[in-house]
Amino acid sequence: MLIPLSWDAPIRKEMDRVEEEIRSAVASEQGLLTDICMHVIGAGGKRIRPGLVLLSYHAVGGKEPDKIRGIAASFELIHSATLIHDDINDHGEIRRGKAAAYKKYGVQKALVAGDFLFVRSFRLGGQWNQEVVNIISEACTATAESEILQNAYEFVPDTPLDAYLQIIAGKTAMPMWAAARVGAFLGEGAPEQIEAMGRFGLAIGMAFQIIDDVLDVIGDERSLGKPHGIDILDGKPTLPLIEAMKDPKVAGRLAEVFSKEDKSHEEIEEALDLVRRTKALQESLKVARRFGDAALGHLSALDASPFKRGLAELVDAVVDRKA
Amino acid sequence: MLIPLSWDAPIRKEMDRVEEEIRSAVASEQGLLTDICMHVIGAGGKRIRPGLVLLSYHAVGGKEPDKIRGIAASFELIHSATLIHDDINDHGEIRRGKAAAYKKYGVQKALVAGDFLFVRSFRLGGQWNQEVVNIISEACTATAESEILQNAYEFVPDTPLDAYLQIIAGKTAMPMWAAARVGAFLGEGAPEQIEAMGRFGLAIGMAFQIIDDVLDVIGDERSLGKPHGIDILDGKPTLPLIEAMKDPKVAGRLAEVFSKEDKSHEEIEEALDLVRRTKALQESLKVARRFGDAALGHLSALDASPFKRGLAELVDAVVDRKA
Repeated sequence: MLIPLSWDAPIRKEMDRVEEEIRSAVASEQGLLTDICMHVIGAGGKRIRPGLVLLSYHAVGGKEPDKIRGIAASFELIHSATLIHDDINDHGEIRRGKAAAYKKYGVQKALVAGDFLFVRSFRLGGQWNQEVVNIISEACTATAESEILQNAYEFVPDTPLDAYLQIIAGKTAMPMWAAARVGAFLGEGAPEQIEAMGRFGLAIGMAFQIIDDVLDVIGDERSLGKPHGIDILDGKPTLPLIEAMKDPKVAGRLAEVFSKEDKSHEEIEEALDLVRRTKALQESLKVARRFGDAALGHLSALDASPFKRGLAELVDAVVDRKA
Repeated sequence: MLIPLSWDAPIRKEMDRVEEEIRSAVASEQGLLTDICMHVIGAGGKRIRPGLVLLSYHAVGGKEPDKIRGIAASFELIHSATLIHDDINDHGEIRRGKAAAYKKYGVQKALVAGDFLFVRSFRLGGQWNQEVVNIISEACTATAESEILQNAYEFVPDTPLDAYLQIIAGKTAMPMWAAARVGAFLGEGAPEQIEAMGRFGLAIGMAFQIIDDVLDVIGDERSLGKPHGIDILDGKPTLPLIEAMKDPKVAGRLAEVFSKEDKSHEEIEEALDLVRRTKALQESLKVARRFGDAALGHLSALDASPFKRGLAELVDAVVDRKA
């Protein structure tokens, strides 16, 4: 019988080195800049993106992980930059149980710190060839574009499913697509393995975001590291919302509350209750599971290894995530 | 007798191609993103940074300018990203005679558009080797760091000269250092030419920012494309301020007004008048001229050519700039 492992067990030591790389990348003669970056980076985070790079790299046979810890780190830097800028945009007050960077340091400094993180990730990512640069910039472009698309559907309760899927692909799944694909590319996997790992990353990213959306409905502040109901508050369409809107018993009132730009605490709780009363969460979890299964299916392109097993564990960790 | 030429005469056609490159780089399936970028990019700007890349490239003997129009464009994209983010930070309402991007499109979309421009410049810059990536990321790092430093001296009337010089080096001169250096590097100049072109860019950048500071005191809104007195309003230390503070007849009142976070229109005009009454503008122009002369001095590393002459014309255009 296999003892269940955490997904990052096969790369634990390398992840420590990636962590050092991240910390050295944010060093600055302006200590405040480093502080702002570390406020976010040091507050936790599961380092899924660097983990995807490393696991994919090894899973296709890559043998020199020291070479790729910089690029693995760069994915976390980009992710952190995005979090800092997103919080400014969404007025998110709490992140990973701490005040959002812009709340603590002011919008101006947080904005600059995000830019600084982009620059530092550019320095690490730009060491590689055009293929790697293209993959990363395609993902970052998708992230920016999805922000604009998401904005167009803010406070729109009848957001179409395909718009929602495009939004979460851009903001969450494409960066994971890029991480897994870059890992497989640098590990010199066969073309079909590189392709499969990209699809794996995309699918796990979709599952990840859907679970995030579900947790915003059922989670509590302590486990989430931020208040729940944020998506309702910000008017961000989620899969649970879209599913709940199919139920005529709640659709009218849910649409009414969701579309309000200013909502009271009571209205948010009411909307969450309405969603919970439908089959929305159950259906959303099913969709997440389907994306998870699709991700697992793409692993058939890989030979058996502890790294392949780590990737499979990661799928389960994402889909069965409690918070 | 030589007929005076505009500085970009020797690269006019190539600049048109760089312009196409810029426009194609901001294409997006989210048309709004392209619109926001073009709102800033299309509103004008002298394209000094791409011009520096091209002139330096040719001036050291580079022969394939088609290869470098992408990297030349990337400098303008970075510059535009910085302008968009700066306006959010400084609450600048008008830029190049038009509403600032965040005023027209909202902070959220402007912030994303800036990030998008960084990504697109990364894609262009990341095509090159580590040396080029390092030069660009060093400049961008300096820009971010100088924003933090500038912030620390906001509303501080007795800002030391060396802090001021470090701020303008980071925000204005280092990007020009990078542009000129990258051009000379890609043109395969001799090491001392690459070094000299970097110093040229740094010096012309210092002169450029000092003239900008002077114009904020003596310019008018029509020629500046934005109201004058913005630096006083925002509490940004400038060379004219630092020079004026040496005059005991105005220092007390000037310090009092400058250090106020909220200033009336009358107070701003009063502060500008106080600066104008001293030798500050004269002294600032002298310092700008000295940086301009230093820049011209670095051109001795180059053989005579229309491109060398273009670089010299650029120095004069910068130092004698009216607005």
